[in-house]
Order: sequence, then C-alpha cells, then structure tokens
Amino acid sequence: MVKKQMKLGAFFFLPGHHVASWRHPQAEVHDTWTISYLTQLAQTAERGKFDNIFFADVFGQGVHESSLSGIKLDPLVIISALAAVTKNIGLTATLTTTYNEPFHVARKFAAIDHLSGGRAAWNVVTSQNENEAQLFGKEQHLQHANRYARAEEFVDVVKKLWHSIEAEALVIDKEKGQFLDITKTKKVEHEGKHFNVTGYLDTPSTPQGHPVIVQAGSSEAGKELAAKTAEVIFTAWQTLEDAQAFYQDVKSRLAKYGRSEEDLKVMPGVFITVAKTEEEARRKQKELNSYISPEVGLGYLSYFIGKDVTQLDPDSSIPDFGVNEEDVTNPNTRANIIKNTIIQNGFTTLRELYEHIAGARGHREIVGTPEQIADQLQEWFENGAADGFNIMPPTFPQGLNDIVDLVIPELQRRGLFRTEYEGTTLRENLGLKHPIAQQVVHTN
Amino acid sequence: MVKKQMKLGAFFFLPGHHVASWRHPQAEVHDTWTISYLTQLAQTAERGKFDNIFFADVFGQGVHESSLSGIKLDPLVIISALAAVTKNIGLTATLTTTYNEPFHVARKFAAIDHLSGGRAAWNVVTSQNENEAQLFGKEQHLQHANRYARAEEFVDVVKKLWHSIEAEALVIDKEKGQFLDITKTKKVEHEGKHFNVTGYLDTPSTPQGHPVIVQAGSSEAGKELAAKTAEVIFTAWQTLEDAQAFYQDVKSRLAKYGRSEEDLKVMPGVFITVAKTEEEARRKQKELNSYISPEVGLGYLSYFIGKDVTQLDPDSSIPDFGVNEEDVTNPNTRANIIKNTIIQNGFTTLRELYEHIAGARGHREIVGTPEQIADQLQEWFENGAADGFNIMPPTFPQGLNDIVDLVIPELQRRGLFRTEYEGTTLRENLGLKHPIAQQVVHTN
Repeated sequence: MVKKQMKLGAFFFLPGHHVASWRHPQAEVHDTWTISYLTQLAQTAERGKFDNIFFADVFGQGVHESSLSGIKLDPLVIISALAAVTKNIGLTATLTTTYNEPFHVARKFAAIDHLSGGRAAWNVVTSQNENEAQLFGKEQHLQHANRYARAEEFVDVVKKLWHSIEAEALVIDKEKGQFLDITKTKKVEHEGKHFNVTGYLDTPSTPQGHPVIVQAGSSEAGKELAAKTAEVIFTAWQTLEDAQAFYQDVKSRLAKYGRSEEDLKVMPGVFITVAKTEEEARRKQKELNSYISPEVGLGYLSYFIGKDVTQLDPDSSIPDFGVNEEDVTNPNTRANIIKNTIIQNGFTTLRELYEHIAGARGHREIVGTPEQIADQLQEWFENGAADGFNIMPPTFPQGLNDIVDLVIPELQRRGLFRTEYEGTTLRENLGLKHPIAQQVVHTN
Repeated sequence: MVKKQMKLGAFFFLPGHHVASWRHPQAEVHDTWTISYLTQLAQTAERGKFDNIFFADVFGQGVHESSLSGIKLDPLVIISALAAVTKNIGLTATLTTTYNEPFHVARKFAAIDHLSGGRAAWNVVTSQNENEAQLFGKEQHLQHANRYARAEEFVDVVKKLWHSIEAEALVIDKEKGQFLDITKTKKVEHEGKHFNVTGYLDTPSTPQGHPVIVQAGSSEAGKELAAKTAEVIFTAWQTLEDAQAFYQDVKSRLAKYGRSEEDLKVMPGVFITVAKTEEEARRKQKELNSYISPEVGLGYLSYFIGKDVTQLDPDSSIPDFGVNEEDVTNPNTRANIIKNTIIQNGFTTLRELYEHIAGARGHREIVGTPEQIADQLQEWFENGAADGFNIMPPTFPQGLNDIVDLVIPELQRRGLFRTEYEGTTLRENLGLKHPIAQQVVHTN
C-alpha cells in the first residue's frame, strides 16, 4: 500500500512573511513586482513539488512610513501571469465576496483554469477591514453574519455560472456548422437574497470541471460554509490538540452535505525557519527580529489585537485586550488566536509577542533543522490534525529556497511527500474529485 | 528627417474576425483557450513589431447552436498571462465602466503594467448590451448619457488611484527603516455623482506612469470623453472622407483640455485579407464566406441592424431598418455604419451585406496583394485620416501570419512602419508622453 502523503502549499507573501523581511540585506522589494522574479519563485516552488502557490489579499490598509504593509500587486493578475510560466503547480488567489460580483469572479477564475490547464483555485474570503468599504463607496461595512450569508450565496452563483456551458456542449462540427449542443447548456436563473443573476457565463466549464475552492474562515459560519463548499481549508493553530479538534469538527460536518472526508483538505499555516543546524536557524530568526523597530512591532501588534499599544514600552508586560462581539462566537478569530499564542508560548512582554506575530501572524512557528521540522509536520499529519500545510517562508527567495532544498527532501525521504506530481491538474494532485455539477440538470 | 511612421494594433478576436472562421479547416477552437496557442499568436504579432495586441470584450450574448458568438476567455486574464511570455508588444484589454468598480480596474491594470514592464492599456467602454445588466442583477440598463457620465467619472477616479502612491514615494531605506515617503503619496478622497472612493490604491504608480487609455466610442459623448482622457482611439470608417472628418473633429477637441494632437492616436479598424495575388486573396475571402449559413448570416445581421431579418430570403433586397433614438445624435453607431456600408459598397441583397459584416463588422475591408493593402493604408495615413490602424485578421493563426509575413514587410520597405521597437514601454512605442499626474498635488 502506498503511504498517504501530505499536501503542501507555498504561501507567497512578498518580500517575506516576516514584517521586517524587506529590511533583510537580500530582499529586493522592487523585484517583487517583476515577472522575472515572480517566475523564479514560482518555478522554485514547482521544483519543490508544492501542490500550489497561495496568495492572500487584503486592501485598504493605508500607507505607512516604516513598513511595506499594504503595498502589493493584485494576486489574480499575478496567478494569471504565472499560469504562462509554470506547468504543474496550482495557483491560488484570494478574492473577497464582499465587494465583488459573482459573474466577474466566475469568469476570471474560469479563464485562469483554462490557461493553466486546470491549476486554478479561488480562496473565498469575506472582507474584515473597515477601510475596504470606503474604496467602494460603502459607508458601513457588512456585519459578519451578512458577510457569510452573502459569501455562501456568492459561491453558489459562481458554481452555477461555471457550469452554464458544459465542456461537452462544445460540438464544433465544422461540416454541419453546429457549434454548440444547446441541450448541454443551462442558463443561470438565480434569484436570491443578495444576487439576481440571469444568463450564461460565456466561458465553458474548465479543465478541472471548475477551479478548486479554498476557504480560510474558521468561525462557526466559516466552518459551516467550508463544509458545504470548500475543498481546501487554510487555518491557524498553535497546538496539536486544537488542530485535532478543528480537524475533527470540520470533517464531521461534511456528511450532511453528501461529502466524504477526502473532499476537504485541512491545511494549517506553518511559519518555518530552517537551517542545517538549530543554532543557525535560531540565528536567522534573531536576525530578522532585529530589523523590527519597536514602533513597527507595536504598531503591527496593535493592528492584530485591535488595541493601541504603540505608546507602551516594548519590554513592558502585555496588557489585557478585549474580544469584540464577533469574536465571542468565533473561537478562531484573530484576538483569540493571539491570546492562545501568549499562553502557549509563555510570552510575558510586548516585544516577545510582536516578534512572534511579526513572522507567523498567529500561525504555528517552527524553527530548526530539516529533521526537527519534518518531525513536527509529521506529528500533526499522522495524528489527525492536518492533511497538509500552507508553508510560510520568512523571506523570499532565500527562505523558500531553504524549504525546497532542506525540508522537502527530508519529507520525501520519509515517504511523506511526493517526488513527482501525480497528475496535471491541481485537483488531481490534491486528490480531489472532479466536481459533480449538482446544479446542472440537463433538461431543455 | 525621419519619416513619420504608422502605429499598428493586432486585433485578436479568436478564432478569427470572420463569423465563420471557426469552420475554416485550419481553425482549432479548443486551442484558442490554451496558453501555448495564445503565446504563439502574441509572439507572431511581436515578430511583426505591432504596437499592441487588442482584445475586445462583450458578454451576455447567450448561446447559439450554429455560432461561437459569446464563447470566450476573460481578456484581462489573457493579457496578464501574455505579459509573462512577451517582451515588447503592448497588451490592451477592454473593460466596461458600466458594471465594474474603479478600484478593481485601477488595481488590475496597474498590476499588469508592472508585470509587463510598462505595456498595459485599458480600452474603456460602456456596456451597450441589454443582457449584460441581468448578469449583475440590474433590471434596467443605464441610458447612454448616464453611461458616459459614469464612464468619465470612472476614468477620473481610476487615474487618481493610479497616482495615490507615486513610484518616487518608495524610499526603501533598509538602514533607516524607512519604507515610504508619505509626502509623495496622496489619499484619494473622491465624492462624485457615481462614486465615493476614499483611500489608496495599494499598488505604486507603474512603469508607464499609468497604463495607456484606449477608447472606442465615436458618438458625440464618446468623442468628447476621448478628447479629454483617451490616448488611443479605435474607430470604424469606410471612406477616406469620413475618416478625415472624424480625425479632424477629435484632434480639434484636444486643445481645450490642454492636450496636443500627438497626445491622441486615431486608429481605425481594418479587416485585411491578403495573398501574393489578388486572385488568391479573393479566393480566400470567398472561401470564408462560403462557411456562412444563411441562418447564421441573417441572425448576425439582425443583431447588427437591430431588426429581425432571419425569416427573409438571403437573396432578397435589404429592407429599411430603423435608427433608434440613441443613434440620432450619434453619426457613428452601428445602424448608421451599416447604412453607410450599404451605400458605399453598393450592396443590394441581404447576402451581400451579411457577407461583408461577417468579417469586417462595419470596419473597412481591404482584400488584395501586400502592395494593394499598403497603398490603401498609406493613403489614409498620409492624408490625415489615421495615425495607424487596428488590424483585424480574418482567421488565426493563418490570417495573422499572412499579415506579418506579407503586409508588414511591404510597409517597412516603404519606411511606413518600424523595423525595431523604439522603446520598452507601449507609451514609448506609441510616441505618447509620460502622463503628468494632474490630480496629484504634493502638499504636506
């Protein structure tokens, strides 16, 4: 029997996941906006046989004199470009359901799935940032419950659009002059609470049937939406026990939607600093932390805990910070993640906390040798806590090179990770089924 | 003195501009959705030293058994992908202002301009298709005047966003820990009739300053909007006299916006069928027309003239068709273009008319040898009717290959077209100035 293997995503956050990575001597921020640099990174991840490259997205963060926070390129455009210069690796972009239209989202991801030969994935999120609303002329940000109801309906409409012209409908009989078999098309006639959409997506169903659906929410509403619609779930946990509980929770919700446990892959984020010796890895970690000025560290922390601590001494103790209403019903939102982080790591000062958040941002952090890192990933993978991981390199390109050159071979030696891609589509590599177009009833 | 040279766009409409091109023996419709095929076409156009590749866009056309009408990939995704596999050629995608948000449009084209090293262009249109509205839950389509007012404000907001973080603001001083010079950023605070946008575009200004603005409207409102904001205008004329009148008209409107005649390039569309002999070219034209069934021809014509003629005999005479209210104030809308086409070509039957429209769709059609085609392009170019042309090949890849291999060398021999790209950006090749960010007043 072939040993079950983990799935791995390469989380691209440029020039690095660490908030001060732009100050690293090897960082070249301008390069991160060029296709040659992005191609080099993507091809490195592909050399490492990663399942996919993952791009987060958030906007409306404003401008900051001492940090690159909020300066970036649109991830959908990036993955479209990378489709042309990669062959096997999946391409995941985040796109919010809060300020978009289902037709636009369906059409763009369908095109990427065609051009990449079946490697597109959409990370479905709802917008949490108040400032985003103002970029779209919305005075009030949608409430959490409404955002999720809208997201659920949004995904539903997008899937209908993706299957409005099935690939089999394309007869293309030149002699007869028949282009389409109309009986294999299905006009979308959606009337819902948030959307009314009538018509066809003008792009036929794609190499993957439709792009893979990724989701990152871990609130009650988020877990239910994931169980209903997601194929990959990206999440953040510090301990094996918490990760196991989450894993069991979401997997147990699948059956009622007629889905099996294999239909949803749980992939927690892991911030990894690796070197050949533990000492060297710790030195790397320390070097990056040395680039965080207290101003940036406290500012970043304030953003994460929702409380202004910028005037405090970085070496003073961590003050109590509130949990907003939304968080009460949500065991995995940011403030709670941070609270758990403090307890589990035994942090006492603001500096210890911000140095941690500056890299992992609430995700699990592992620092050490390839063997130490593989041990920890293996523990979670073999004990019902994860189907794989979304790997967060501290810097690019070096942090990614280190993972590909040191960690991946160790996982491969243990038989825990592929040495060749299993298929040509992301869906095949992730071991996900071709979607059954439940919405598409082929009547006339 | 260096001879003034024409600008040329390659209008990609796949698998060909001719409505029956998909029935051509060499057409491979499935290929048109693959990156390898699109790359091959783009690199052919680049070998021909075209200024840019142009993608139209329209949706909501429904599905048709005997035509590929409305089956396509999103052009923005296509040009993003092509940015990765081309070096010099400009990349123009059409995106409507009617059902989009300025922030999304600004962000995506800015990213493409970065990744292409300064080769992005946005073809600004308003949506004319009633069915588009229904894809976005809008019951009533915007009226013409409102669409243009919205478009004007839309472009205004997009330009402000493109200059909210000037490239010079990126200090990136690693030692000091200074990322941005905040005084060189400018928060957008736009309160208008159609949009309220407050915040920053999170992408810095681009290699071209900002992407090139293309426009295609030729109504009174369209001409005024073009004079105010466009850098390239794509238009449709049958005769030298009409094209000259239009050329003089739009050029004369520039001064009042503080712009010179060089700031706006007028590029009419030309549908070209070329072969080494005129006889061979005519044979090619005839072959493509033979693939048009009367059903498709009459259906296509009905769409263009806004009157159902599908039940008529294709060899009967052309019935009178109305001009709608919008057209009365618009000398260059579709129904009028078709009326002029009938008169200027002396068409008497429906078949003659639909065979013409099936390829050129109201644009000028030239069939002949490379010399004959160069003669006609030269006549317009040297007599104040055009700064260049948007070339429409009847089929891909062969129709494009023919133009690159036969027409381009003839134009180059006459000194009418470049043999090498002048610059690295589209703006440089088109001879357009780097935009002055009029909206950006650097205070603080």
